[in-house]
Amino acid sequence: MKRYSFILILAGLLVLTARKIFAGDPSGIHTYSDSIQGLKFSVNFAWTLLSAFLVFNMQAGFTFLGAGFVQKRNTLNYLSMSFISFCVGAIIFWIFGFALMFGGSKLAPGLSSGSQFIGYSGFLLLGESYDVSTSVLWMFQIMFAATACAIVTGAVAERFKFHAYVIYSVFLCGVLYPVFGHWMWGKGWLEMLPFGVGARDFAGSGVVHGMGGLIAFIAAWMLGPRFGKYNPDGSSNVIHGHNMAYIVIGTLTLIFGWFGFNAGSTLAVTELRVSIIAVNTFLSAAAGAITLLYFSYAKTKKSDIIMTCNGALAGCVAITASGAYVPHWAAVVIGIVASLITRSSLYFIESKLKIDDPVGAISVHGANGLWGLLSVGIFSDGTYGGVKGLIVGSCSQLLSQFIACVTLIAWCFATGFILFYLMKRFFGLRVPVNIERSGIDVYEHGTSCYPGI
Amino acid sequence: MKRYSFILILAGLLVLTARKIFAGDPSGIHTYSDSIQGLKFSVNFAWTLLSAFLVFNMQAGFTFLGAGFVQKRNTLNYLSMSFISFCVGAIIFWIFGFALMFGGSKLAPGLSSGSQFIGYSGFLLLGESYDVSTSVLWMFQIMFAATACAIVTGAVAERFKFHAYVIYSVFLCGVLYPVFGHWMWGKGWLEMLPFGVGARDFAGSGVVHGMGGLIAFIAAWMLGPRFGKYNPDGSSNVIHGHNMAYIVIGTLTLIFGWFGFNAGSTLAVTELRVSIIAVNTFLSAAAGAITLLYFSYAKTKKSDIIMTCNGALAGCVAITASGAYVPHWAAVVIGIVASLITRSSLYFIESKLKIDDPVGAISVHGANGLWGLLSVGIFSDGTYGGVKGLIVGSCSQLLSQFIACVTLIAWCFATGFILFYLMKRFFGLRVPVNIERSGIDVYEHGTSCYPGI
Amino acid sequence: MKRYSFILILAGLLVLTARKIFAGDPSGIHTYSDSIQGLKFSVNFAWTLLSAFLVFNMQAGFTFLGAGFVQKRNTLNYLSMSFISFCVGAIIFWIFGFALMFGGSKLAPGLSSGSQFIGYSGFLLLGESYDVSTSVLWMFQIMFAATACAIVTGAVAERFKFHAYVIYSVFLCGVLYPVFGHWMWGKGWLEMLPFGVGARDFAGSGVVHGMGGLIAFIAAWMLGPRFGKYNPDGSSNVIHGHNMAYIVIGTLTLIFGWFGFNAGSTLAVTELRVSIIAVNTFLSAAAGAITLLYFSYAKTKKSDIIMTCNGALAGCVAITASGAYVPHWAAVVIGIVASLITRSSLYFIESKLKIDDPVGAISVHGANGLWGLLSVGIFSDGTYGGVKGLIVGSCSQLLSQFIACVTLIAWCFATGFILFYLMKRFFGLRVPVNIERSGIDVYEHGTSCYPGI
Repeated sequence: MKRYSFILILAGLLVLTARKIFAGDPSGIHTYSDSIQGLKFSVNFAWTLLSAFLVFNMQAGFTFLGAGFVQKRNTLNYLSMSFISFCVGAIIFWIFGFALMFGGSKLAPGLSSGSQFIGYSGFLLLGESYDVSTSVLWMFQIMFAATACAIVTGAVAERFKFHAYVIYSVFLCGVLYPVFGHWMWGKGWLEMLPFGVGARDFAGSGVVHGMGGLIAFIAAWMLGPRFGKYNPDGSSNVIHGHNMAYIVIGTLTLIFGWFGFNAGSTLAVTELRVSIIAVNTFLSAAAGAITLLYFSYAKTKKSDIIMTCNGALAGCVAITASGAYVPHWAAVVIGIVASLITRSSLYFIESKLKIDDPVGAISVHGANGLWGLLSVGIFSDGTYGGVKGLIVGSCSQLLSQFIACVTLIAWCFATGFILFYLMKRFFGLRVPVNIERSGIDVYEHGTSCYPGI
Repeated sequence: MKRYSFILILAGLLVLTARKIFAGDPSGIHTYSDSIQGLKFSVNFAWTLLSAFLVFNMQAGFTFLGAGFVQKRNTLNYLSMSFISFCVGAIIFWIFGFALMFGGSKLAPGLSSGSQFIGYSGFLLLGESYDVSTSVLWMFQIMFAATACAIVTGAVAERFKFHAYVIYSVFLCGVLYPVFGHWMWGKGWLEMLPFGVGARDFAGSGVVHGMGGLIAFIAAWMLGPRFGKYNPDGSSNVIHGHNMAYIVIGTLTLIFGWFGFNAGSTLAVTELRVSIIAVNTFLSAAAGAITLLYFSYAKTKKSDIIMTCNGALAGCVAITASGAYVPHWAAVVIGIVASLITRSSLYFIESKLKIDDPVGAISVHGANGLWGLLSVGIFSDGTYGGVKGLIVGSCSQLLSQFIACVTLIAWCFATGFILFYLMKRFFGLRVPVNIERSGIDVYEHGTSCYPGI
Repeated sequence: MKRYSFILILAGLLVLTARKIFAGDPSGIHTYSDSIQGLKFSVNFAWTLLSAFLVFNMQAGFTFLGAGFVQKRNTLNYLSMSFISFCVGAIIFWIFGFALMFGGSKLAPGLSSGSQFIGYSGFLLLGESYDVSTSVLWMFQIMFAATACAIVTGAVAERFKFHAYVIYSVFLCGVLYPVFGHWMWGKGWLEMLPFGVGARDFAGSGVVHGMGGLIAFIAAWMLGPRFGKYNPDGSSNVIHGHNMAYIVIGTLTLIFGWFGFNAGSTLAVTELRVSIIAVNTFLSAAAGAITLLYFSYAKTKKSDIIMTCNGALAGCVAITASGAYVPHWAAVVIGIVASLITRSSLYFIESKLKIDDPVGAISVHGANGLWGLLSVGIFSDGTYGGVKGLIVGSCSQLLSQFIACVTLIAWCFATGFILFYLMKRFFGLRVPVNIERSGIDVYEHGTSCYPGI
């Protein structure tokens, strides 16, 4: 009863404050008109929103993928983390993450205040930022924040405390992601670098996937491997997932969403380049998949479909930064290289660094996030956005991209370490070892994933 | 052979009648032109159709969700009901449901005849209603009818006769839904109420979800609880579903479709308010999910992901009526309240009324359908459609919304009772009790859902 | 290490060749302008790309569907074939398939060279075909090639060698599909037939589904039935799939994508006819589903949901050719007939021809591909594209459609036979019989689909 009263009082207060509506153009009446300019808004709103919806559906992809990779007894725990991350992300990004990221970018009304290092306008989408143009930007961007957040889930699966995960989500979507995002996309200092046209990360190889993958690295390292992953002599065991069909379906669902992720990142279909971007995404994914299929086959004489899926995702990650700037043949090359990087990285992380990453998030998203950033400086052919890479004889862009890579690594490692260190110190990161052995689902969530069976 | 002859004769008759084409603008040539007005049609067609496709995909969401909630031995039965409902719905809505609902609304060519109580033009999309604009409206609206129909499925699962379900679908999509829908969306008397701007239900909290949930209430009540649900002393048992992963994936798929459901309900992306609507939908879902996660946690010390999913869906249902009219902060409040209503309702329905609703459809869709309708009268800030609620000092809109609620309850209870009473009397609603105990799948559908296992 | 060097050298060579960019309009700057014409490009790009993404998602549908139909021990093999087909298809279609199909069609820049029998421009999307308009066409068309390729997968499931499948994919997407596609869609001789307006196959009943289904016929025939399918006396056994839920979900996912497949095939939403097409698709699917539900029920007294799904897909296949040309009532008739054809064909293929088609691809896609082609000549009402069928008193269109059918059968049987004959002769088509009995997954792919269980 007390809780309801609290809600009622809160509502009452909001009533009082809200009676005077101070806003940008929340109805869209001033933004739209029956004219060329008005229709441009409409068609670009449609494009951006529908793309955002597709990116949202990547959450279903991550959920399928990760659920397939984990053991049966921890599946519900994975699903829970996957589901809550975007819920927490949405609320935090609305309260302040978006303001930190896009304040000062002037990309939409109400985003005028901010420096090259941090934004500080657009909080709660109130005031001037209660505007149709600002909301469309928010809708697209929250999906990206949620994606970055979801990437880490797989790397910490089967041993992370659920409530630690919720806290991690708050900080990732509220601070870590928006601040770096501001530097790259919110008129921040990386975007303004004096080499080439400044650092460019078209749809977020670095901002989204690199960040997710590198934070996953720190998280998986500080969390330690799953019980039974490594033997006393340092050799590793394969811990099988429980449903390969989910992995394949998840990969397909992710690619489906990725078309929105990449082609939608123009935020405008009046940029007809979108078609080149979509084709590049598909070619890079296909090239990565085929490469790892036959590369694995050459080693093991088995057609490893999980590795094939990893190759496809690696191609998608890498082309995310450069898809808008490179010609089609380069997309194929980028995808091939990405898949080889992924395989090497998987081996290196598991066998050399002895970090346990159940789904391969570090290798697929982290390593290729960096490769994607660099690929902009290599393969951009100058036909879009003025971005020129090595293949058209320009070296300076690559310097910007390299600085972005170094900055990303430094930022993720530093902030990720602090975040997980503090959480570890104050309430611990891992479930008790006996729970880990018997399964997290019943302990944390009160039921198994397949209770009737 | 006789059946084929029948088809041929039917085709022959149609040939004769159809030779003279009497139509609106079935080619679109007269509607479209290379002009601002022509392009408005195009961009709004694209928006509405793509949104309709997304709403169709909610069928996959309902299928996943319900399949997860039911026991293994009744899964195929659930899938069958879920699948056939939109098939039956499409044919019935085409023959006469659409005409009853939108006749007289003048929303598109061929819909000119109808009163404030019922429509009577647009049958079979023939004549003047064989027009591109009428078809685009039909395509969007059938998806809503199919959604209303699908909501009931979960509440009657594991004991309803399959052929009774088919008959129910005919009446829901053909009469119950269209008539109430006409009152609200087809220039009917609720829409024309003299309080505020008349009753408003933007995307169908009441028309679609409220109706589905309230009919589910009547159906589950008249059908009685599943065998084993209640003990002789009146206490209830938990009957576990068989796949929690399906529930989470289903919820994600439903939210994905809901963006089309809500934002698409402008029927026009030239209404830039669509972006506010999409953001409100997401925020309400997120707020509902987080609220129920921690509310359940406070009671049980378990992180109940199923309750979390219910919270997200509750937020979606409630914001469906008001998403276009309220500011973002109100969407969060609406979602929080919706999730609390859902939890109370789940308890009340199961433990006090002793009605067995396997998936919680009554609480998620029914209770929040009503709350959604009321929320329009409370939180609308007057920035869109002239709808003003309590927070900007207007009380009259709330009166219209209240009348709509009462009408909806009366209509659903009366017609639902008659429908299920007649079905019960003439051929019975429930499968035999021995079948219920051994599983409906093999009995009604000839195979189990997982035959090889 | 050698592999990496190879990549680097390849990249080096590409750098040298690419420095001089020779292209159409890869940035879109010359194609787009702030004008009615420019916006037409934008809105049609958005429509076509988003439709292409939906069609891509049909891969998830085929994956679910087929995975459900096969036995547990061969599921991963099916998933692998399903996944690799579009990867291989994308690369091959990019290198030369697209050029063979659309060269000479003049549908976009860089596609000027080709005869009525084969195209020969647009290779690698290089030169003039490095253009935003050409890429949008490619993006849509590759999804269709991938669909044709995926259809065969189910018919050869549970016994086909994985690497033979990869080779088949190369030839289907690179030669068989593009050449026939050129005749119908690339200004080829079928499209130019002097009867009616020439042969018409709006979205590919024949080009995509007919080809897939007829190649599936040849493949399944040459491969022979699965071990245990037929008894020595010629009677057949039912080999159950392992997950009926996947089949229903897969069907829903396919219909979702089919809206993009059919309505998107205008390549332009400035053709407002898209709404009629979408409605026809839905009605035909619904009519087919209901017909087979009750037809089966009349025979077996069971409500066969798998047959119901087949009916829905049959309706979708058949309406694919004619959806743009026929009125709504005809879509219902076409769907009903399609479902009856499917049921007869299923019986005929299994019991008379004794060809083992685990998912029914031949009957659903092949038989209805032909029926769809013919239905254009029967039910077209002349309201779109000038196509007039029997129902408006014109017979000549049906002649064109009949010629297209005969040509399709001849082409598929001839080329399919040669392809599978050569593969059989040089390296065999089937896995060893002991592998077939114990399951292909572990043998070919190194793990089972559900390893933890």
